[in-house]
Amino acid sequence: MMRAGPVTAPEGREGVSKVLAEMCYRGAGEYDSRGLSEALDGLGLQRGGGAAGEMASFGGALLADNLGKALELHADIIRRPKLPDAELEPVVALALQDLEALEDAPARKMFVHLKRAYYTSQHGRSALGKSETLERLSADALREDHARRYSPDGAILSVAGRFDWDWLKGAVGARFGDWTGSGPSAPEPEYRVASHYEHVEQETAQEHIGLTYASIPPRHPDRYAARLAIGVLSGGMGARLFTEIREKRGLVYSVSASPSEVRGHGTIMCYAGTTPERSQETLDVLVQELRRLGEGVEAEELERARVGLLSSLVMQGESTSARARAITSDYFYLGRVRSLREIREGVEGVTPEAIVDHLARHPAENFTVTSLGPRKLTVPA
Amino acid sequence: MMRAGPVTAPEGREGVSKVLAEMCYRGAGEYDSRGLSEALDGLGLQRGGGAAGEMASFGGALLADNLGKALELHADIIRRPKLPDAELEPVVALALQDLEALEDAPARKMFVHLKRAYYTSQHGRSALGKSETLERLSADALREDHARRYSPDGAILSVAGRFDWDWLKGAVGARFGDWTGSGPSAPEPEYRVASHYEHVEQETAQEHIGLTYASIPPRHPDRYAARLAIGVLSGGMGARLFTEIREKRGLVYSVSASPSEVRGHGTIMCYAGTTPERSQETLDVLVQELRRLGEGVEAEELERARVGLLSSLVMQGESTSARARAITSDYFYLGRVRSLREIREGVEGVTPEAIVDHLARHPAENFTVTSLGPRKLTVPA
Repeated sequence: MMRAGPVTAPEGREGVSKVLAEMCYRGAGEYDSRGLSEALDGLGLQRGGGAAGEMASFGGALLADNLGKALELHADIIRRPKLPDAELEPVVALALQDLEALEDAPARKMFVHLKRAYYTSQHGRSALGKSETLERLSADALREDHARRYSPDGAILSVAGRFDWDWLKGAVGARFGDWTGSGPSAPEPEYRVASHYEHVEQETAQEHIGLTYASIPPRHPDRYAARLAIGVLSGGMGARLFTEIREKRGLVYSVSASPSEVRGHGTIMCYAGTTPERSQETLDVLVQELRRLGEGVEAEELERARVGLLSSLVMQGESTSARARAITSDYFYLGRVRSLREIREGVEGVTPEAIVDHLARHPAENFTVTSLGPRKLTVPA
Repeated sequence: MMRAGPVTAPEGREGVSKVLAEMCYRGAGEYDSRGLSEALDGLGLQRGGGAAGEMASFGGALLADNLGKALELHADIIRRPKLPDAELEPVVALALQDLEALEDAPARKMFVHLKRAYYTSQHGRSALGKSETLERLSADALREDHARRYSPDGAILSVAGRFDWDWLKGAVGARFGDWTGSGPSAPEPEYRVASHYEHVEQETAQEHIGLTYASIPPRHPDRYAARLAIGVLSGGMGARLFTEIREKRGLVYSVSASPSEVRGHGTIMCYAGTTPERSQETLDVLVQELRRLGEGVEAEELERARVGLLSSLVMQGESTSARARAITSDYFYLGRVRSLREIREGVEGVTPEAIVDHLARHPAENFTVTSLGPRKLTVPA
């Protein structure tokens, strides 16, 4: 992972991050595009990663025996991509198609608008870029961007699964030890502090509603209290949003609230997809439930949210891919990696009072709301 | 898992399967709707399952210590749901919304049309049902359907993870041992044997193309040869469809081919999403690549497909949820469960000649094609 996502892209070139990450697979080191794909397939690598938000990441899941060869190939992909002129056109064509496909994915499109409406800094940028800037990209611009942003400065390498630590240190040292350079400076997140509403008129069958508001940054001591507060709202079948909005009233097929973070800032992000007729009531009940949370939670609600979080923590521990992602994310946002035990103890230590205290200091208010669909809504005062 | 998916639903009531599966969570045994949701959340259960195709399934992932209580709750959910009149309206409202949401999900909608175009038997039904039949559902109809289709006849229970076999047999016996009744008879799959094309005109940004054709049934001895043939076409970055359609020509953002099975019949199902301008070329190249496969595969291509399959097999073995799904599916389609070792040996035993032989007997032909988007296409002769 490197700090080469759209957030740190040059002005007017957001889409370069995704195009560059894709171009790195079009030949690197001694391999041409075809040869590289075949070499990766030969390792049984299930490719993961991509460029989004603050990060560009490379990697995937594969059998432990192939780790050494995978590190070798990734050193080529990241440090020595060929970035050939001839591959630029098909890669840009794909990026334009992905952007165009957003028109057929209204929920995803709504989130692009919501993020852009909330963040006034580069953090609101979409990884998809814009068609006019994508079309203007040259192979030279990609090479320049690669030299500037693909650097060891702030880069994180995470490995989970079966490996020997001393062997890994040696293998990484041999492939990346002589890598030098400084990376792009990370901008500070800036965001809307007053309520705000935007409607995107579109002839969709459903109305897609997004709502976000400021919560705590990743390194805040209330971290576990905030996570459990959201667990009371959303997660299980007995959680409040599911019960009030979906089960009792049949208003929406899906409704959720979850924490969303960038470095230095955190928000709560909510989504509901419903029919245009039920959309105003859905937004009203959603806002009401967010505010009602500050009035207190029952001990049983907290307990269920806790069991749900601990249960998914254990399951995450079983998946090497999920564990590798968690390691990267901890290191990026917190500057260190938490053990599963530390997280468990943090989750176990939260009391109902701690949640109420947290919500008194960080109430649900000053909502940024975006709706996409046939109907313009009114955000409850 | 029971044979209570839309395939075995009464005529004109396809949607009942999904509504009934949802209604089973609205109170069962001693629990009302709210109490049941809270009890499941209290176990940290991450609910899985649903009704689709031939099956209705219930279950989820949870910590091993809670397995006994989860079996107890599921005996209530499956055998003693309350199916209360008052919950029917919100549940039907949700089912109608899910059906309506299809209009905003063109790729998913295209597959509904493709399946309906290919299968002339009930196997072509969508789990979503139709609005007129959903609206006509009564609580009595649900109770009648529950009595008829939720039965131990053909039901499969699969558990993967940490448990004691003798303890499990006892626990299942106590909860399900006295369950009696016979289930619905499973219809034979019938499908189109000649080429067929359907276009669904819709003002989408992308053109969505689906193509399917008959392959071998699940119990066929060519099983591994067929799977590897598709692996040569689709799967890794070096696979033919990805290389020819995405990498070289930049025609589509996503393109894939994969096996799809019902009991007694199997097909290959392909998907490509592209711009209307590139859609005809995409379909042409897709058909060309499917036919070219019969001309032979290189040893290296086969080897890459093999490594990819074996690699994902190992990863599947690490996930208890994936393993439980594989056990159900093996038992349902094959009548027995394959060990990971048996599958590995099956995959390892396939030669390039076996693939060519298989494709000679089961060539890619007589395509059923569906396109959804602004442009009507011509299927190459």
